[in-house]
Amino acid sequence: MTYHPREFRARTWHDATPAFAAGRDTPRAYLERCLEAIAAREPVVKAWVVLNEGSAREAADASTARWKAGRMLSSIDGMPIGIKDLLETRDMPTQQGCEAFRGAFPKRDNAAVAALRQAGAVVLGKTVTTELGSSHPGPTTNPFDAGRTPGGSSSGSAAAIAAGMVPAAIGSQVGGSIIRPASYCGNIALKPSQGAIHRGERQATSMSTHGVHAGSFEDMWTVAIEIAKRAGGDPGRMSLKGPDAAPAARKPRALAVLETEGWAELDPGSKAAFAALLDQLARAGVRILRRADHPFLETLERRIADARAMANTITNWEGRWSLRALVDQYPDGVSDRAKQRLAFIETQTVTDYEARLAERAAAQQAHAAIAGLADAVVMLSSPGPAPVWAGDVPGQKLAPRPTGDIAFNAPSSALFAPAVTVPLLAVGGMPLGVQAMGQQGQDAEMAAIARWLHESLEPIAV
Amino acid sequence: MTYHPREFRARTWHDATPAFAAGRDTPRAYLERCLEAIAAREPVVKAWVVLNEGSAREAADASTARWKAGRMLSSIDGMPIGIKDLLETRDMPTQQGCEAFRGAFPKRDNAAVAALRQAGAVVLGKTVTTELGSSHPGPTTNPFDAGRTPGGSSSGSAAAIAAGMVPAAIGSQVGGSIIRPASYCGNIALKPSQGAIHRGERQATSMSTHGVHAGSFEDMWTVAIEIAKRAGGDPGRMSLKGPDAAPAARKPRALAVLETEGWAELDPGSKAAFAALLDQLARAGVRILRRADHPFLETLERRIADARAMANTITNWEGRWSLRALVDQYPDGVSDRAKQRLAFIETQTVTDYEARLAERAAAQQAHAAIAGLADAVVMLSSPGPAPVWAGDVPGQKLAPRPTGDIAFNAPSSALFAPAVTVPLLAVGGMPLGVQAMGQQGQDAEMAAIARWLHESLEPIAV
Repeated sequence: MTYHPREFRARTWHDATPAFAAGRDTPRAYLERCLEAIAAREPVVKAWVVLNEGSAREAADASTARWKAGRMLSSIDGMPIGIKDLLETRDMPTQQGCEAFRGAFPKRDNAAVAALRQAGAVVLGKTVTTELGSSHPGPTTNPFDAGRTPGGSSSGSAAAIAAGMVPAAIGSQVGGSIIRPASYCGNIALKPSQGAIHRGERQATSMSTHGVHAGSFEDMWTVAIEIAKRAGGDPGRMSLKGPDAAPAARKPRALAVLETEGWAELDPGSKAAFAALLDQLARAGVRILRRADHPFLETLERRIADARAMANTITNWEGRWSLRALVDQYPDGVSDRAKQRLAFIETQTVTDYEARLAERAAAQQAHAAIAGLADAVVMLSSPGPAPVWAGDVPGQKLAPRPTGDIAFNAPSSALFAPAVTVPLLAVGGMPLGVQAMGQQGQDAEMAAIARWLHESLEPIAV
Repeated sequence: MTYHPREFRARTWHDATPAFAAGRDTPRAYLERCLEAIAAREPVVKAWVVLNEGSAREAADASTARWKAGRMLSSIDGMPIGIKDLLETRDMPTQQGCEAFRGAFPKRDNAAVAALRQAGAVVLGKTVTTELGSSHPGPTTNPFDAGRTPGGSSSGSAAAIAAGMVPAAIGSQVGGSIIRPASYCGNIALKPSQGAIHRGERQATSMSTHGVHAGSFEDMWTVAIEIAKRAGGDPGRMSLKGPDAAPAARKPRALAVLETEGWAELDPGSKAAFAALLDQLARAGVRILRRADHPFLETLERRIADARAMANTITNWEGRWSLRALVDQYPDGVSDRAKQRLAFIETQTVTDYEARLAERAAAQQAHAAIAGLADAVVMLSSPGPAPVWAGDVPGQKLAPRPTGDIAFNAPSSALFAPAVTVPLLAVGGMPLGVQAMGQQGQDAEMAAIARWLHESLEPIAV
């Protein structure tokens, strides 16, 4: 199925609720439509680890009663939502895409999941993650081409949106695990500022965030803000701030283009599509700044010139202790990819790690320095569309990046910066996202600017 | 047994190792002496939740072989050590002083515990913690007066040192859980800079640290640094830095006295003892600064004037989600104290919490501002000696602070500041500690200054 951003329609929630209020539709009926879409597409897409239809139907019925009584808990009361299988859920196992956690069932809700339930949302199921949120892929396929990866690690959440199964799903990003799969799957998605959405039990890394994959701005924003209002941010961090309804589109005055280390590797089609988009922006009167235009931008580019290695070293070190403990306890419980990663990490020292922390702090300073130059950074959300992925070949070296390359995502993770991706491009019939990235705390601003890009620019297919 | 700081001798390790090297003693024999002390005192002191004598003897034998071969893994190779029962251990349950976790056995080592084993230390057992590290006390009694609290939450670790059971034990502090019990039990102890020792799975709070209770500076420091060299600091934080051996004593040029909100509540004996100590310091040529001596000190005092409430609000909010999940899953699994706390926290909002975070940041700025005025802050380690604690009285209101008051500890926790307590005072035959608190990252400096206080000042008993 060839994708075009002008033609594709994702499932949405915000425009369904007036019919609930008017009594012409119900959250239960909405849920049934989601389940029909899942039944139709899941055999090929494989977005879900487990569905909890029984509990979901009960929750949807309770929501239906609240809408009838006019006593909704929030604007997402009744919204069916998928939860990445890294987050604990009290009524479903949490298996993290990892053999060692097969059947693991902590019987408690992650803080964000608890907040969703408090807001009335219908927790429908757990979506596929790569193993432990790292590089080893799960079974999910790209809904626009089953021979390609949906991206990772939030593979199932991104694919569930692309396949119209649910209006929103929770993902998480440590390197590029929200924005990249969202790009490959034509999602609208938010990777918030570091710490802006409470990660619950998942506090083990210094640069990961929970975020939202959705089919619309409205649903992306309301899911995020309804969680943050209830669960707050991570310990010691300020929570996501902004209005209850999605921020209105706002035209930026100036946007800075970051090339990152992805630019050199980019295919000609993706380059051409992005260049055409920048031309549109310039014609619309938005000033476009590049690295040659200001020394601060050049400095920032240099500071993130090896953001991939920076992100990987930091994250791998932070996961070293728990991965070692897991392998000691379950020698056959993790993939060869994970074992290779552990072997590499264990050659690293505290000093290697802390040197990368210092580089990250310097990159954050360089990013703070451009705050007055541009309203946001604009860049591709991934280095081209989803790559073909046919699985590992027995006996051959493991492919290093089966769910794609983090070159355009490691910066926002390392900079603790909010990023919002919008589906504006198609390359070879596959989606390619464009993201707005801002200063820490400017999540609502990024949503407003990305929304303007989405509503004002003409999608481009090459 | 009346305590006097000049007479009390704790068990030490550093001065035992020359005999190991010379073949006159062995880590196994050292362990047996610890086990004898435990057998003699444990029936009354109740410092331990569980002992693992079998594994400990195996580990001590392996260490004995390494000492014989001259292939020690570190200077603490063979050291018997107690682990606060909040930290996971692969070979013992982790029950957190909480009925809901009775029998819980995660079968993995906390990052700091894993590091201790890598350094050759003998993980002897789990020490009593208050319930979940909060206010509800465990069974441990104060080794110097069984009618008094040992302090909390690191009750068992502090008492084990006081009873000469082990040379060192791991504690953790979120409000005052290392420095206060160490004060009540005559320990030397380190509460490091925030994040300086990897907390492993215990990342849920923004102002807690692992630390070390010990009978000597040498053992306190080597345990801390050998952990930090292997496990590093918390994700995103710089680890403890310093020499492999304990820093030499260093005489401070100037010390700032902080009164904190504890001063007004202090008993006359403790006030007199501390005043006499300050007189000694002045006579030794150390400049003593008080709040009236500099506006920056007055500002800092004001910023920490309700540090107890600040610390409690922050910590309670951060524990709210997991405590709620625990109570939902195990309605009878937590104490009435914990349930009262949960009921209170659930009246708080994200905004209440974030307002306290902002206050904390302002207090940290005020603390940073005094860096050039004094080499350290000096203050009591607790508002007087250990209070009498006879247990809750059925039918009566629960005592608010059964393990003592955090008035002199909440500041170092909220300021993310390193603090080292030394046993220099006795009031009414019970120990009372004095602490040196410094700027973030100045852990080794604080150890050096506290060591100078300990070695150069005459202990005072009133």
